[in-house]
Amino acid sequence: MKNITVIGGGTGTFVVLSGLKNYDYNLSAVVTSMDSGGSTGKLRDQYGVLPPGDVRQCLVALSEASELWRKLFLYRFDKGDFKGHNFGNIFLTALEQVTAPHYQEVIDTASYILQTKGKVIPVTFDRVHLCAEYEDGEVLMTEDLIDSAFYKESRISKAFLKPDASANPGAVEAILTADYIIMGPGDLYTSIIPNLIVNGIKDAFMVTKAKVLLNVNLMTKHGQTPNYSAADHVRDLERYMGRAVDIVVLNNKKISDEVEKYYSEYGEQEVVDDLSDFTDHKIEVLRADLVADQTVATSMADVIVRSLQRHDPDKLAKVLSSVIQ
Amino acid sequence: MKNITVIGGGTGTFVVLSGLKNYDYNLSAVVTSMDSGGSTGKLRDQYGVLPPGDVRQCLVALSEASELWRKLFLYRFDKGDFKGHNFGNIFLTALEQVTAPHYQEVIDTASYILQTKGKVIPVTFDRVHLCAEYEDGEVLMTEDLIDSAFYKESRISKAFLKPDASANPGAVEAILTADYIIMGPGDLYTSIIPNLIVNGIKDAFMVTKAKVLLNVNLMTKHGQTPNYSAADHVRDLERYMGRAVDIVVLNNKKISDEVEKYYSEYGEQEVVDDLSDFTDHKIEVLRADLVADQTVATSMADVIVRSLQRHDPDKLAKVLSSVIQ
Repeated sequence: MKNITVIGGGTGTFVVLSGLKNYDYNLSAVVTSMDSGGSTGKLRDQYGVLPPGDVRQCLVALSEASELWRKLFLYRFDKGDFKGHNFGNIFLTALEQVTAPHYQEVIDTASYILQTKGKVIPVTFDRVHLCAEYEDGEVLMTEDLIDSAFYKESRISKAFLKPDASANPGAVEAILTADYIIMGPGDLYTSIIPNLIVNGIKDAFMVTKAKVLLNVNLMTKHGQTPNYSAADHVRDLERYMGRAVDIVVLNNKKISDEVEKYYSEYGEQEVVDDLSDFTDHKIEVLRADLVADQTVATSMADVIVRSLQRHDPDKLAKVLSSVIQ
Repeated sequence: MKNITVIGGGTGTFVVLSGLKNYDYNLSAVVTSMDSGGSTGKLRDQYGVLPPGDVRQCLVALSEASELWRKLFLYRFDKGDFKGHNFGNIFLTALEQVTAPHYQEVIDTASYILQTKGKVIPVTFDRVHLCAEYEDGEVLMTEDLIDSAFYKESRISKAFLKPDASANPGAVEAILTADYIIMGPGDLYTSIIPNLIVNGIKDAFMVTKAKVLLNVNLMTKHGQTPNYSAADHVRDLERYMGRAVDIVVLNNKKISDEVEKYYSEYGEQEVVDDLSDFTDHKIEVLRADLVADQTVATSMADVIVRSLQRHDPDKLAKVLSSVIQ
């Protein structure tokens, strides 16, 4: 059975894992643990726990438990003392308090309950914050500030952690033993790259024999990937990874005018496919219809409004499975 | 296998169930659902759920799951947004929101997680409040007010619910099919009698062929059972049950002077054993050393300070098992 390691966090990773779990792979999800916004951020501040949001989403994505469990984990209280928090986050927080300092027990217990098909591996157990330095010289610290910096016109010149973080050995192992490493879709600077700047991860990338695959985002994101083409995504990722991307998967179905108009109001547009002109190194490019038929207005996850147009989990997984050999 | 139905709620029932689960019985716990104080009361008010406190305690008492799960369910947050709430209550509350209106799913799911040996059955699914009318004419409404009415000198002349409640059919069945029904130890007017004044329960008691056993409390309780003797406990219970108690189990080990002194400061003392003079009807009386070697200062459950001297679960279960034939 092929070892597939998905690296990310957030909704894009949820989509990839939801699709891939229906295939016969040995799945690992290496996820960010630098979230600082919404329910997750409050729990992090109040209880000093590892931010539970991304771990929770990946656990649910991989879950083969009943609909009830999945609903329970995603259930968000809309009133009372727990308003704004979702149950999965509270669960992981209580579990961490009870099991401390053995965070792996948190994951193991939650995985047992949710009957996850695959492992969820926080990229680091260290409590650190994400920072971004922009080309205009400004530095933003904490993931939620960066995630909501829609006003920024300039690109991010450097992402780093404060303080430094050491990789979870389990994350290094998942990279070293992978046959394929899959990244994207997802916010490049708040969901994907945060994993790569943890000490020990880049080293693992430079040694692993895994093929690296990038699912390019459907749309650009203001404040993170303004006017980014597909090649821009590839090059930024390669810089932090310290090695080449082998395979790129791109959507080639036209996004509807209505959705495009919505994004353009925020200065965002479809990612331009310029990979026919990509000459940095040899790269395999797959193009297919990957968009979900239904668009979504807000997220099931945290308070922040997420992207409207998503990848379809099944369409994406089908293309990925055609690559994985 | 004998069908044993324990009726109650609170710490006393926790002790009985914890001991009996180590024997080979078919256990059912019929529990109060009129709690209105502490974390449970807040959740009841804020989310309109069935008060989770007593259900949670019984589930944990019957649990054969790992120590981790039991610790998790009893874990109380001591800071932040969840301060004062314990995880088990949050769990049951979220589960009820997700499964509503099928409350049985809440219990089933929690039982599955906690691997309970036996069933936990709320006496009613109706949202009602406990009321107590005292001999001095005062009426107190809500369980937490009655539970903390330490200042009351007079006895309770009448306990009733507002509005009326209908029995959970599962509770009626557990009474009808029982070989033995066990009540106490526990607060007579806030943990035991509230079960008996639900419509349909007294009827079931008058029909069932089960033997009824009462574990008499170690100490009197101001505001509920002031200066109550063992016979007083029996007579109050019989009035609400509509039938005779068959067997009484009493402690005969002297409570330590230190503990007695503590209680006497609150106007409470050891329950006097006057059952040698009990001539109301035939009654079987068992006396044994039942006290726990260790005393406890506060409860693992809710904010209220609980009794200091407890029954020992194993000593009590041993005596009960000698009765059950």
